[in-house]
Amino acid sequence: MDLTECIHNDLFAKHVGIRLVETKEGYAKAEMDIHEYHLNGVRMVQGGAIFTLADYAFAAASNSRGLLCIGVQNSISYFKSPKGKKLIAVAKEVSYGRKLCSYVIDVTDENNERIAQMTALGYLKQPKE
Amino acid sequence: MDLTECIHNDLFAKHVGIRLVETKEGYAKAEMDIHEYHLNGVRMVQGGAIFTLADYAFAAASNSRGLLCIGVQNSISYFKSPKGKKLIAVAKEVSYGRKLCSYVIDVTDENNERIAQMTALGYLKQPKE
Amino acid sequence: MDLTECIHNDLFAKHVGIRLVETKEGYAKAEMDIHEYHLNGVRMVQGGAIFTLADYAFAAASNSRGLLCIGVQNSISYFKSPKGKKLIAVAKEVSYGRKLCSYVIDVTDENNERIAQMTALGYLKQPKE
Amino acid sequence: MDLTECIHNDLFAKHVGIRLVETKEGYAKAEMDIHEYHLNGVRMVQGGAIFTLADYAFAAASNSRGLLCIGVQNSISYFKSPKGKKLIAVAKEVSYGRKLCSYVIDVTDENNERIAQMTALGYLKQPKE
Repeated sequence: MDLTECIHNDLFAKHVGIRLVETKEGYAKAEMDIHEYHLNGVRMVQGGAIFTLADYAFAAASNSRGLLCIGVQNSISYFKSPKGKKLIAVAKEVSYGRKLCSYVIDVTDENNERIAQMTALGYLKQPKE
Repeated sequence: MDLTECIHNDLFAKHVGIRLVETKEGYAKAEMDIHEYHLNGVRMVQGGAIFTLADYAFAAASNSRGLLCIGVQNSISYFKSPKGKKLIAVAKEVSYGRKLCSYVIDVTDENNERIAQMTALGYLKQPKE
Repeated sequence: MDLTECIHNDLFAKHVGIRLVETKEGYAKAEMDIHEYHLNGVRMVQGGAIFTLADYAFAAASNSRGLLCIGVQNSISYFKSPKGKKLIAVAKEVSYGRKLCSYVIDVTDENNERIAQMTALGYLKQPKE
Repeated sequence: MDLTECIHNDLFAKHVGIRLVETKEGYAKAEMDIHEYHLNGVRMVQGGAIFTLADYAFAAASNSRGLLCIGVQNSISYFKSPKGKKLIAVAKEVSYGRKLCSYVIDVTDENNERIAQMTALGYLKQPKE
């Protein structure tokens, strides 16, 4: 399985308007232009859209080392409503073990203000499994 | 602000194909038929879609008591890939204080197997604020 | 390795004054009498003491099926300061897969008021590993 | 209320053998020498001890700006069993709003290996409340 291709073929990420900007080992950056369809009923970007952006950066980073990584747990905190027209998520590796890996994902707006932070835990599937 | 209307006017929930099935005080149920656009690159329902469904049930439940509730923190764990064509999320109140409230949201598939569980913390905006 | 004995030989749980009350498959109950040494600087029961009680109930429940379970992730929310002289933690199984298991742990005080809730994820060590 | 004094008068932190090493605005460092009483039944440092160390660093950092901060939610992931005789926790500010603040706390062992990471959310009590 070509993991890079898998990340690019994520249909839900496409549906939500997310694009992958950069990937390297243990790192990824993704962006999303804010559209009308991202808003909730009080006209703020919906938490699920912010989560999906951050989770996609996590998926790209955690699958960047050649092993299939399956997300098992995420924690996200929201700090403020974004300003501007774009959100950026950057995923950085915190730990990469034999079975589990962990990432921190920061979501910032166009003014470079941090609007949310996620931590994510992945399960690494060894080839023989 | 009519909070019930706000929940119904959630554009992102609509974009993701989520419908609200039931709301009562401290409780909500939402559903989502699984479409091609919900899938990730390995053809499983993407975590962001599952999160968004659970988070929307949380929003409906936590705004059901007349006070505006803003989501501040979510934790989600994924247990298995869903079977069937539909996902159901049920949000139940765990605690409702003066400033903060907490919910557990269970996501099940068509076979009634639990596929994910979220806990969510909301901040309650008092009218005078 | 006798897992039941391992749970009973937890030196830190003893140091914190925690006792195991009941264990059955996928379930455990633990208690802690509140002492002066459990308090923080504002004279409330310290979060770490509440966490340790809940986590010990999780350890007892998740090791009750014969496989060694190692805790990998916990989320805890605090709702109110406890009343009375005792805290009780009850751990219930949410999911038990081949590699991962998940529990919800409720912490209540003497008045049966919920003061905190934890969710916990464990990694199951298969015998051959 | 003198918050610095409150942090120093934390009886549970003392009971667990934790000492505060450094505090500045939005930052704190705490340490703990590993003793026999910190171990669980499989002779590893118990999760509750690691949590308490990280949470205490969070308390010191989040109360460093003059406002009383009450911990409301923590997420912790464990990466590996520590080597050596000492654990160090460093808490850094991620966000400090009007009502809520957020911190990341890294726990390392004597070899400077990261063994756990916590994220913590606090509620800020305004003077008039």
